[in-house]
Amino acid sequence: MTIKLDPWGHFAIKEYDKLFKQFGIEPIDKATPLLPKKHYFFDRKIVFGHRDFDKWLQALRNGEKVAVLTGFMPSGHTHLGHLMVIEELRFLQELGAHVKIVIADAEAYAVRRLSRKETIKYGIEYIAHAIAWGLNPEKTEFYFQTAQKTEYYRLIQMFSRRVSMAEMEAIYGDISPGKIIASLTQAADILHLQLPEYGGYKHVLVPVGADQDPHLRLSRDIADRFHTELGLNRPASFYHKFIRGLDGNKMSSSRPDYAIFLLDKPDIIKRKVMMALTGGRATAEEQRKYGGIPEKCTVYELYMYFLYKDDRELYKLYKECVEGKILCGEDKRIAAKLLVEMLTEHQKRYKEVMEEGIVQKIVKIPSF
Amino acid sequence: MTIKLDPWGHFAIKEYDKLFKQFGIEPIDKATPLLPKKHYFFDRKIVFGHRDFDKWLQALRNGEKVAVLTGFMPSGHTHLGHLMVIEELRFLQELGAHVKIVIADAEAYAVRRLSRKETIKYGIEYIAHAIAWGLNPEKTEFYFQTAQKTEYYRLIQMFSRRVSMAEMEAIYGDISPGKIIASLTQAADILHLQLPEYGGYKHVLVPVGADQDPHLRLSRDIADRFHTELGLNRPASFYHKFIRGLDGNKMSSSRPDYAIFLLDKPDIIKRKVMMALTGGRATAEEQRKYGGIPEKCTVYELYMYFLYKDDRELYKLYKECVEGKILCGEDKRIAAKLLVEMLTEHQKRYKEVMEEGIVQKIVKIPSF
Repeated sequence: MTIKLDPWGHFAIKEYDKLFKQFGIEPIDKATPLLPKKHYFFDRKIVFGHRDFDKWLQALRNGEKVAVLTGFMPSGHTHLGHLMVIEELRFLQELGAHVKIVIADAEAYAVRRLSRKETIKYGIEYIAHAIAWGLNPEKTEFYFQTAQKTEYYRLIQMFSRRVSMAEMEAIYGDISPGKIIASLTQAADILHLQLPEYGGYKHVLVPVGADQDPHLRLSRDIADRFHTELGLNRPASFYHKFIRGLDGNKMSSSRPDYAIFLLDKPDIIKRKVMMALTGGRATAEEQRKYGGIPEKCTVYELYMYFLYKDDRELYKLYKECVEGKILCGEDKRIAAKLLVEMLTEHQKRYKEVMEEGIVQKIVKIPSF
Repeated sequence: MTIKLDPWGHFAIKEYDKLFKQFGIEPIDKATPLLPKKHYFFDRKIVFGHRDFDKWLQALRNGEKVAVLTGFMPSGHTHLGHLMVIEELRFLQELGAHVKIVIADAEAYAVRRLSRKETIKYGIEYIAHAIAWGLNPEKTEFYFQTAQKTEYYRLIQMFSRRVSMAEMEAIYGDISPGKIIASLTQAADILHLQLPEYGGYKHVLVPVGADQDPHLRLSRDIADRFHTELGLNRPASFYHKFIRGLDGNKMSSSRPDYAIFLLDKPDIIKRKVMMALTGGRATAEEQRKYGGIPEKCTVYELYMYFLYKDDRELYKLYKECVEGKILCGEDKRIAAKLLVEMLTEHQKRYKEVMEEGIVQKIVKIPSF
């Protein structure tokens, strides 16, 4: 049986076990102890699996040059699903890794069919949020796929020689010229940092959702095929569960009522949280008797991903919920309050970043 | 019935007629009178057909900005088949057109599977020959497909959105990621001169062999599809018959005994010409009686393409041949002598171009 890797879906642990067995993704536990510093994303298994992340951490500990590369598809406003990736990058930068972020505007244009103007506008928004959240604008590299250097594009052309239509079909199913270019562009994103022209980073880590693993597998194969010619090595990767939308499905800007956008105003945030799907019972009475089901609750996920960084706090909430000691209404009010605080603070910094024109100062914006 | 367009093949006039009817290529006659200056390639129907060349010539006559773009696949040493294209470009530059030449090294690497080092070496050779033959190094732009500017590569990514697999299959039959990238790269070659970043030339002419017409059709369609978004217009084109190899098949560096390379030494040239396929009869006696068949003769083609620019001279030779007044041996000796003179002179200039390092001064050579 083949598992469909759904990037934004919510997997049960059982399904993750299959991922480990079928695709050779390792459970994160083996790598976590090598982290020089703890982060709750790893302890809570939000980051649940990896390829060669242990080797990458060992290189970091050995003082070797290490880099992180991940991408954002600029196809809508930035929401909490993106913020968890930004938080990962912030943490990895804190550990001493060089961080590079690609805005996949070529892909958004070709595959998602957005206008160039929209993709560029959304791209600038992502970058501003990343800086506002704490990525160091002087140390972080950002680029648009359509505003890169020659050596990067040359990789796309060169890679095309050693990949097959069958590989493209394995990634996309139904293929098109747009998807083929997007796929080879992603391989160039993942591998270009290893070129001398781009810093010669031989240990590159790619944090992504599990749905992106086919791209990682392709990039690892391409690295093998160009090892001699271009000196490329396999990238490492780790895989996270995405925070769900407030209706329990994937959080997506295409269903804005169930996503928390980073620029949502307090009253909007409160309204969305109060409407959210929980693991509550039909009546308050039943809930007091049987307790809630946090595993089903999208508000519980807000606490787990962002609001309660302290495991004891989170555990206390979990316990109170399953024992029926806290009801969904109260739980939501607390979550909404904490989320408003977090995002109000963030929006203040976002505003400063935009007013100072930092993005335009540090990133080459495509001309059309 | 579908006609297979063979770029290096020799077509009978009848087959060209079908080309005109099936693909909408116009006979050259309509455009030729608009040339501000005559060239025997047009009068002799070496250039036999076109699309919108008449409009391009009208723009030239109106003093509008006009450009020419064509490409060389750096997959072997430069031979007379390439030289005829260089001669066309020299002539068009003389008329006042801006000339830009692409070295299709990405395509040679991906589709022909040459090493990067070889493609770059051959590319430099083509450029040096073009300059030695008379293209003005200060006015001619040359570039490698793998050493271009961002705006060019962005076109490849953007075009991928509005082309289909069916179109790719129509051009290549059996498709691969390498061929798809090569095809979109060719479209970027043909269309990028129209961007403001590249001079904003709205009248671009592409001189090619008839086999390249599917690429032209694709580029014309892409221009239509991006007319509003990028302001692209359809390119014009004209089509030439390629000079045949000395065995009567296409001239190709893959069969070096039957190609005249521009760097061939005099004794090699003589030997090759003396071995060439002619339209001669089995014996001298028969030939004196029935005459030769110049249409079949590869040596006659040398005269037609390069050695006798004066139509009267060519006609005299033709007449003497069909009347049996000149035999193949003598004919070959004269051709060899003239060819040696022409190429010795050219090689002297080639050597100067190489010694002065002109190519490296005016062209960005890819770093890997």
